[in-house]
Amino acid sequence: MPPTTRRIPRPTAQRLSLYSRELQVLIGQGRETLSSRELGEKLGVSSAQVRKDLSWIGQSRQTHEAGRSGIGYDCGALYESIRRVVGTNRRWATALVGVGNIGRALLGYGGFVDEGFPIVAVLDCDERLAGKRIGGFVVDPMSSLRKVVQKHHVTIGILAVPRSSAQIVAKQLCDAGIQGILNFAPMKISVSEGVSVANIDLSVALEQLSLDISLDSKRRPSGEDKE
Amino acid sequence: MPPTTRRIPRPTAQRLSLYSRELQVLIGQGRETLSSRELGEKLGVSSAQVRKDLSWIGQSRQTHEAGRSGIGYDCGALYESIRRVVGTNRRWATALVGVGNIGRALLGYGGFVDEGFPIVAVLDCDERLAGKRIGGFVVDPMSSLRKVVQKHHVTIGILAVPRSSAQIVAKQLCDAGIQGILNFAPMKISVSEGVSVANIDLSVALEQLSLDISLDSKRRPSGEDKE
Repeated sequence: MPPTTRRIPRPTAQRLSLYSRELQVLIGQGRETLSSRELGEKLGVSSAQVRKDLSWIGQSRQTHEAGRSGIGYDCGALYESIRRVVGTNRRWATALVGVGNIGRALLGYGGFVDEGFPIVAVLDCDERLAGKRIGGFVVDPMSSLRKVVQKHHVTIGILAVPRSSAQIVAKQLCDAGIQGILNFAPMKISVSEGVSVANIDLSVALEQLSLDISLDSKRRPSGEDKE
Repeated sequence: MPPTTRRIPRPTAQRLSLYSRELQVLIGQGRETLSSRELGEKLGVSSAQVRKDLSWIGQSRQTHEAGRSGIGYDCGALYESIRRVVGTNRRWATALVGVGNIGRALLGYGGFVDEGFPIVAVLDCDERLAGKRIGGFVVDPMSSLRKVVQKHHVTIGILAVPRSSAQIVAKQLCDAGIQGILNFAPMKISVSEGVSVANIDLSVALEQLSLDISLDSKRRPSGEDKE
């Protein structure tokens, strides 16, 4: 990884992530080159902004080759350069903690492997589940967490435990040397400095929809009263 | 629903949603009253802001009774008042479209019923799946969408189809009279005016983690190269 990528501002990096998604689709459609204008239009970003963002990548050798004035960027080379910066060209081993409803659903979801975030170990706070086989994994007890993280080079913890134990488990993950947490518990968790958190909260999303529909004055809510 | 709730600003409504979550926990712990200061401290909001937000609810009869100066708010009454405004005291029937990895995982996830958003019908774009039994449901073809929505009073569509068909299905859901879409497809969908969208994007969350870990200059990325 070239040292220049270390200074990329967060908003730029997030746009790079969106660009890579568009590029993936275009490459799948057989496209070979792309202008900053077209890429910007697809995402509602000005072409000047696109060029500025891509200049961050242009500082590394690979995309210097990818940016050709006149005919636009080489889709494949640009895609690979961005993936290198965003880290999606890597494989990040993940450990799932919690085999309740959400945990079991995630074990059945193939997307983690496809996206490069394979689940390599499964743990649960309930000691009685240790040794049981669930979704193709033998469940490890939390007392084995540090050993599991080291053995499988786990970088990311998937937190799928109830709200009541989320903070405790988050701390255990941090202490075990995890670098990022994908948090499915419906609460904000505190983590050690340098540990990243991404939240996926179905309840919040559902509540947002419920709120939007309830507040919309243009129609009567059609939900039925529970009480 | 009192007409006053219709004018609540979005940021206020979103904070109300957070308050109700805290109240639910406190009530579970046996708490009966709560001050605006304590509620604010739990969420990093000033007590003045909390009182201002709750005054929106205070305009409806129920929480007028709930707000007692001196001893704070009655937790139970406040919780119910907020739920009435946010719409979470209702039952919102949902229809799942797409029985791939994500769709099947969602069918196995009990949270929708618990949160008041039961899945009442399952559809898929693949006509060959029509009539098949998956996760306790008989899959309906998309040609039956409008009939299904009307018959089961479906308010919310759960979009769990691949990116390539997400926009087409989103339009079909809007045309069938859906009021909100919970979108699991990794893209921004366009919907009819008045239809609400909440996005759940696992890929974006995973990429954010990958990005954070890759950009963090304090340590070497430990992900392994895929190539």
